[in-house]
Amino acid sequence: MLSTNHFDAFSKIVGADNCYADQAHRQAYSYDATRQSFLPDAVIFPRDENDVRAVLSYANQHKIPIVARGAGSGFTGGSLSVEGGAILALEKYMNKILEIDLENMIARVQPAVINKDLQNAVEAEGLFYPPDPASQDYSTIGGNVSENAGGMRAAKYGITKNFVLALRAVLPNGELIRAGKKTIKDVAGYNIVGLLTASEGTLAVITEITLKLLPKPRMTLTAMGIFPSVSAAMNATYRSFVNGVTPVAMEFLDNLTIRAVENAYKKGLPTDAGALLIVEVDGNIEADIKWQIETIEKVFKENGCAAFFIAQNDMERDAIWFARRNASQSLKVYGPTKLNEDITVPRSALPELLSRIEAIGKKYDHQIPCFGHTGDGNVHVNVMTNRQDAVRYHNAEKAIREIFETAIELEGTLSGEHGIGVSKAPFMQLAFSPSEMNLFRTIKNALDPNNILNPSKMGL
Amino acid sequence: MLSTNHFDAFSKIVGADNCYADQAHRQAYSYDATRQSFLPDAVIFPRDENDVRAVLSYANQHKIPIVARGAGSGFTGGSLSVEGGAILALEKYMNKILEIDLENMIARVQPAVINKDLQNAVEAEGLFYPPDPASQDYSTIGGNVSENAGGMRAAKYGITKNFVLALRAVLPNGELIRAGKKTIKDVAGYNIVGLLTASEGTLAVITEITLKLLPKPRMTLTAMGIFPSVSAAMNATYRSFVNGVTPVAMEFLDNLTIRAVENAYKKGLPTDAGALLIVEVDGNIEADIKWQIETIEKVFKENGCAAFFIAQNDMERDAIWFARRNASQSLKVYGPTKLNEDITVPRSALPELLSRIEAIGKKYDHQIPCFGHTGDGNVHVNVMTNRQDAVRYHNAEKAIREIFETAIELEGTLSGEHGIGVSKAPFMQLAFSPSEMNLFRTIKNALDPNNILNPSKMGL
Repeated sequence: MLSTNHFDAFSKIVGADNCYADQAHRQAYSYDATRQSFLPDAVIFPRDENDVRAVLSYANQHKIPIVARGAGSGFTGGSLSVEGGAILALEKYMNKILEIDLENMIARVQPAVINKDLQNAVEAEGLFYPPDPASQDYSTIGGNVSENAGGMRAAKYGITKNFVLALRAVLPNGELIRAGKKTIKDVAGYNIVGLLTASEGTLAVITEITLKLLPKPRMTLTAMGIFPSVSAAMNATYRSFVNGVTPVAMEFLDNLTIRAVENAYKKGLPTDAGALLIVEVDGNIEADIKWQIETIEKVFKENGCAAFFIAQNDMERDAIWFARRNASQSLKVYGPTKLNEDITVPRSALPELLSRIEAIGKKYDHQIPCFGHTGDGNVHVNVMTNRQDAVRYHNAEKAIREIFETAIELEGTLSGEHGIGVSKAPFMQLAFSPSEMNLFRTIKNALDPNNILNPSKMGL
Repeated sequence: MLSTNHFDAFSKIVGADNCYADQAHRQAYSYDATRQSFLPDAVIFPRDENDVRAVLSYANQHKIPIVARGAGSGFTGGSLSVEGGAILALEKYMNKILEIDLENMIARVQPAVINKDLQNAVEAEGLFYPPDPASQDYSTIGGNVSENAGGMRAAKYGITKNFVLALRAVLPNGELIRAGKKTIKDVAGYNIVGLLTASEGTLAVITEITLKLLPKPRMTLTAMGIFPSVSAAMNATYRSFVNGVTPVAMEFLDNLTIRAVENAYKKGLPTDAGALLIVEVDGNIEADIKWQIETIEKVFKENGCAAFFIAQNDMERDAIWFARRNASQSLKVYGPTKLNEDITVPRSALPELLSRIEAIGKKYDHQIPCFGHTGDGNVHVNVMTNRQDAVRYHNAEKAIREIFETAIELEGTLSGEHGIGVSKAPFMQLAFSPSEMNLFRTIKNALDPNNILNPSKMGL
């Protein structure tokens, strides 16, 4: 627990209106999208960068854990205060778009700007911020940078780290640093922008982010292909890329997912299909997007695609996306508890991965519907189980471990999008050698010697 | 000097044929493209990753400086053994393309593969590795990663760091680490790939690099615009981007450079032009590249472009590129010694930068021809002076310092492409605060506590 002295010190820094230790505040900031819960000792709302500096400086002197938090929408517990201490809640004040610079095509934002608000603001100016995690309506740019969020458009445009040009950040001792520039090229000094991105709030508190923007593509075209098997769809995916087309999105649903959506919404989906692929291309002229979609149609048909539909208008486009958008919430038909993992493998390993996941499902008697971003090898694997049934839940956990082992064996990763946080921490040793874990710890100890920033995360 | 014991120990690790301390070898590995020279005590040719591990492990125990070296073509002294010790020369053995994986569109290479060899190998398979530093014919991928090399195609495709998916590297204590995956998305653990990229060989020796490839665009179109002033050309540059076209290359030559090339080669260049812009676009279909070049022509003409030529065939394309390719070597007409700096500013600051450089040239009575990659704000500034004339050379150095100060003031960087090494180390304090320098040192000390890897670089 935080002593009264410490609480008063924080209160003095940010003002009594911005510092709380009452039960209501502590509870409101105790959970995230993992549905795990850890009560912080206090909730602090910094008004600006100077507040962040003063809070960290004090916390560092007194070894008080500090967990920076945006929207708390993470899937791995990155914003949970597992060691108590204070939540540094950025969403109340540090939520402004500071600048959209049309001439240099960059945006400068505070960490708690909502992803979708930024997308809308820049699109109003004819520009484009591609990273679009599924949480885009509520997750913050600061959280996106800290977890290096991906999204549907990653295969063509890359992930958050590919758009972060510069940062301002506060080190655990309260010192302010700037890293990077408003320029694409900057090779002076160590790549601190690269290091802080994906560091899950364990090395510094990011107070300002400069993002690269692109010109907004003028048009898109959306299509859907129906495949007899997951394997055929996976082959069609990577062969589309090899044939020279880089679609904005290449999303798939397996048969279990198709049936779940159809069960919930009755949209006339082909419930006997092995898999659906939804593909979207973009460009600036009609002829280019037509060429892309025709190339994809050809590749799809060469790889067993039984039917290919191109959306002729926005209504048809929305209908195609409906199944993908509603996949996640439809799955509860297979069990009350969903263990959702975002493993990623090289695209060519997708057929093997999916067939081994099916076998793991049979072995542990669980339905494991899969869908996701096949364009970049990122599959959302959903082990549908029941937390109330101890035996069944234990089997589900064993299935999850085997799925991680399979992903690593196929040269994939524990996490394509969600990060490690607390929920994937137990699996770090599957993926990293003692030398590699030791390197992570060396960096953490060097930058945060008192271990105050988001302690006990990432298996560190 | 290296003791006989140490030399014998290295000799035993790599074999007597691969370890030298004779004058010829020491001299051959004493310099790089900076024309500075520091004699190493020994030159070691590791045969493989295990040799690298054993050499580093021994050097770390005995605190012997180790400088990994590819082609030695760097412009800032990154591969100079300024503290003596051993050069770890990777080009003899660790120069293989290990894999070009068509299905996943990645290449896996050893560090001493020549950039252009990789480009050619992947293009033969219909793929594309965009980073194309001017040194591409001889510089190595390992050097490119260590310095985070840029090139002409950066404005559209990004720089080296945007293509590095995974690394194998040896830490100073000889431990091997792997970082990253063959996948676009990987957010497990700290971003070690990001940290090692651009670290100038000061944190680890990279032994294997996995690079993202793209489908090779099927066609390009090249054009040249003639402008009355540098300022008009700079405005046309950034407005092209704002109008929705991202050209592969947008290169400029100022009037001094145009006159130098014409003086040397008599190609009929417009010597009264304020600036030339060379632009190249790429795409997969005719209609798309035509749309791009027409949009650029329109923007150029709105910004004062007096004449616009589109290359109709390869011969005309080569003629357009001739001036840019031969710019650097033509400049000696203005002075026997060239101080070439690669500063970068936000694109919109280019007109201001160029006009202030002109004023600095007048102030110190030096010609300062400029050319470069305006598409990403990266200008090669050439202060033409005479090293033999002490007074004049001193003035040139003062001009350089003012140019750096100007770049920083305009929110730019000391280096867009070349890194810091030794030659830009004295200017680090212009760009970084004591806290930022201290952060760099903290990282260096944590990862290389005995300071054996490329010591005394980057102002550390």
